[in-house]
Amino acid sequence: MLPLLLDRAGPEPLHRQVYDQLRAAILTGRLAAGDRLPSSRALAQSLGVSRSTTVLAFDQLLAEGYLVTRTGAGTYVPTELPELKLEASPTGPAALPPTTTYPLSDYGQRLAQTGALHVRTEAAPITFTHYGEPALDQFPLEVWRTLTQRRLRDHDVPLGYERDARGYLPLRAAISEYVTRARAVSCHPDQIVIVGGSQQALDLAARLFVNAGDRVVFEEPGYLGARRVFESYGADLVPVPVDEAGLQVDRLPDAGARLVHVTPSHQFPTGSVLSLPRRLALLDWAERVGALIVEDDYDSEYRYIERPIPALQGLGHHGRVLYIGTFSKVLFPGLRLGYLIVPEALVDLVSRAKWLTDRQAPLLEQAVLADFIREGHMGRHVRRMRTLYAARRACLTQALARVFGDRVRLLGDQSGMHLFISLESGLSDDKVLARAKAEGVGLASAAPYYAGAAPGGEFVLGYAHLTEAAIEEGIKRLARAVGGLHG
Amino acid sequence: MLPLLLDRAGPEPLHRQVYDQLRAAILTGRLAAGDRLPSSRALAQSLGVSRSTTVLAFDQLLAEGYLVTRTGAGTYVPTELPELKLEASPTGPAALPPTTTYPLSDYGQRLAQTGALHVRTEAAPITFTHYGEPALDQFPLEVWRTLTQRRLRDHDVPLGYERDARGYLPLRAAISEYVTRARAVSCHPDQIVIVGGSQQALDLAARLFVNAGDRVVFEEPGYLGARRVFESYGADLVPVPVDEAGLQVDRLPDAGARLVHVTPSHQFPTGSVLSLPRRLALLDWAERVGALIVEDDYDSEYRYIERPIPALQGLGHHGRVLYIGTFSKVLFPGLRLGYLIVPEALVDLVSRAKWLTDRQAPLLEQAVLADFIREGHMGRHVRRMRTLYAARRACLTQALARVFGDRVRLLGDQSGMHLFISLESGLSDDKVLARAKAEGVGLASAAPYYAGAAPGGEFVLGYAHLTEAAIEEGIKRLARAVGGLHG
Repeated sequence: MLPLLLDRAGPEPLHRQVYDQLRAAILTGRLAAGDRLPSSRALAQSLGVSRSTTVLAFDQLLAEGYLVTRTGAGTYVPTELPELKLEASPTGPAALPPTTTYPLSDYGQRLAQTGALHVRTEAAPITFTHYGEPALDQFPLEVWRTLTQRRLRDHDVPLGYERDARGYLPLRAAISEYVTRARAVSCHPDQIVIVGGSQQALDLAARLFVNAGDRVVFEEPGYLGARRVFESYGADLVPVPVDEAGLQVDRLPDAGARLVHVTPSHQFPTGSVLSLPRRLALLDWAERVGALIVEDDYDSEYRYIERPIPALQGLGHHGRVLYIGTFSKVLFPGLRLGYLIVPEALVDLVSRAKWLTDRQAPLLEQAVLADFIREGHMGRHVRRMRTLYAARRACLTQALARVFGDRVRLLGDQSGMHLFISLESGLSDDKVLARAKAEGVGLASAAPYYAGAAPGGEFVLGYAHLTEAAIEEGIKRLARAVGGLHG
Repeated sequence: MLPLLLDRAGPEPLHRQVYDQLRAAILTGRLAAGDRLPSSRALAQSLGVSRSTTVLAFDQLLAEGYLVTRTGAGTYVPTELPELKLEASPTGPAALPPTTTYPLSDYGQRLAQTGALHVRTEAAPITFTHYGEPALDQFPLEVWRTLTQRRLRDHDVPLGYERDARGYLPLRAAISEYVTRARAVSCHPDQIVIVGGSQQALDLAARLFVNAGDRVVFEEPGYLGARRVFESYGADLVPVPVDEAGLQVDRLPDAGARLVHVTPSHQFPTGSVLSLPRRLALLDWAERVGALIVEDDYDSEYRYIERPIPALQGLGHHGRVLYIGTFSKVLFPGLRLGYLIVPEALVDLVSRAKWLTDRQAPLLEQAVLADFIREGHMGRHVRRMRTLYAARRACLTQALARVFGDRVRLLGDQSGMHLFISLESGLSDDKVLARAKAEGVGLASAAPYYAGAAPGGEFVLGYAHLTEAAIEEGIKRLARAVGGLHG
């Protein structure tokens, strides 16, 4: 039996005390996943309280996901604790703490007032909403295990402080070799800083180059995680629309822009690819107005049709491009490793910022990743995934065409891990999402990615993590939800 | 033979081309650690160039540490590439890039003009300068390996995006339990944010609460890595001196301070412990002037004499303390994991800042660390190290007393992983350091930790990583260097 200590004379109601103590026991692991709880009746008896006290406490814990019931088998601690509930904040504006109590900086104040950091995705039997996530079940975890094992067994891990904030040199050398070959990026390992995913690269770039009030050109629609970073530093965002050939460079402001954020390989969320003439024009513009280009190449590895267009970084000759790559899409997001490639003149400065921010990325994972790349595992995995995702993409585009005909327009189907569609349904986006959800399909609207008014009827469909059967079934259900050709 | 391609008609001198291509081959791993190079004569012959060309290239590579010679055995690629050289920047002011070319933010400009980020330590046969580093050879790497192995074998790793920026809940629960018990910290797992080492916690705290021009109280002398963070955000630092009982709270400014950074368990660098009366006075002061306290508890685990004094966080009742802990000292620095414990009213805000900065800490390492703590390995390791470090500390204090008598005064000998000494030698600090180095002893002056003028003659001696034999020998040599009682 659990040792709960109730303070009958205290101000807290008894059911609240039972709730608090059970929750604490679950969170600290004293009650572990799978543990069965006594019945509310038995617990009430042992504590000498009324049954309504224990029922109230259980109900609250069940509602919050700290407990689950299995029909006819009692009440258990679930294997998955309710983290979703705990993350309430990042999807909505933070509760601004009273500034009389807490002296927030300007950054802190802006952060407290900013909108949602990411688009909320809800659970559904078939979900197209995980568009940042690769097919995790396909990752060669056994290879990763062998490489990790080898490093640990041979004591070949730098356990101490790495002296260089840019990270583990063999990893930087491997990345240098890889981006030079695969992306026509022009760089030396000295110019590479290993970061905690592309998000950290964005934060460093914004902090080093953007003051409050500075103009930052941003793709419209564009990636929310980047937009929020620039907003957090007080940037004055200048939306420039994208079309089938990417950012409309003829609509760039004539002057006054400090920085431009672009996703040229696979524009987020539309999926369009920035054309070569526009790349050259963008580089010219940046040189002319004195702006820096942040080239966010978040999923350039997955390109299915033509040869990739060289990265802006390699096309430019004036050191105006900060190039961002990540391993979240090619390996797995939980790894939290990416890289920022900077012009030589900025190496010192960016290294210092990285050191002050968190000194350096974790070393064991950097060492294992270096081995993974150098021994050819990454290349093999990317090739396998490219074939797999191409098949899934084909399945999705065919299913959409079959059930929606010319009521659906596809964008960004040549690369990446998601598809951007425009769907005529005669319904509001919210209605489409709600009806899809009722059919067990998770769908995301593109509207949150617009700074201005969204045209509506646009959706972002992640397919990399879904089997062809799930894709077929999902689109069939979507047709039922919003009325397909034969629905 | 290495395939070097020389462009005889190009503008680059031939020796520079040989240098560049060999360096690239080393950095990209085509020439691996331990590889032997042909002699400069043989290489010259095979390339059809004069021997002076290859000698010039080799000399440059040798000078920069990309090659080493072994007497009578030729020229090799070293196992340690010259990262020290590459990190030139963080130890001195960065080269400010031309602002006409690069539009630096105010943060960027301040960073470029700030002094060294950390105290430079040079290699020596016996070095007391690694005072942040635990005895890495004592870490139970095989246990870590087994736990990592188990997580990877059971596919029990969250590979995708963790939804909660605060990190892996079971780890937060384990930390909550640990700090409550060991440090009398009062917290719920919800209040814990897993960060990339204490450095990230400092950066987040400074960014969220300090505007340029704000007054921040800072220990004098104090931890350089924290000072530089506050400076990078433009803080107006108010130095308050420390003595044997820690920060002199009666010298705190009457008003206008936004934040105070303290290291109460083991003041860095003096090692003094903030007394209980002063802790209570500091909390009162913070409440009165409306300041936040950043309690940096970087090595509280190693306390040898009395029971530890409760953390400020647990003594305070007004939610004015941000508590920082790290696993760099109890486990190993390369892990890059620490935690920031915040008042409930600030949880949302700090989570958002963490999400925007790098989304979350890496998940496999968080999961393994949670297992390491919950299964008792951390407790066991800390107890073993406490015994080991206590013996090394005793050895060091005895050796110092023996060779320097009352010319040496010890501070901070009750806890932590380093000792702070004041030594009468009649020499300048630079002279002491140079003479010690000539005897093969690495020593660090405390002077860089002062914002104002340092009294001189103060040194910081790390001993956790040194065997008793090395400590004895090191102090003997130090006596030879600066003249001991019997030297």
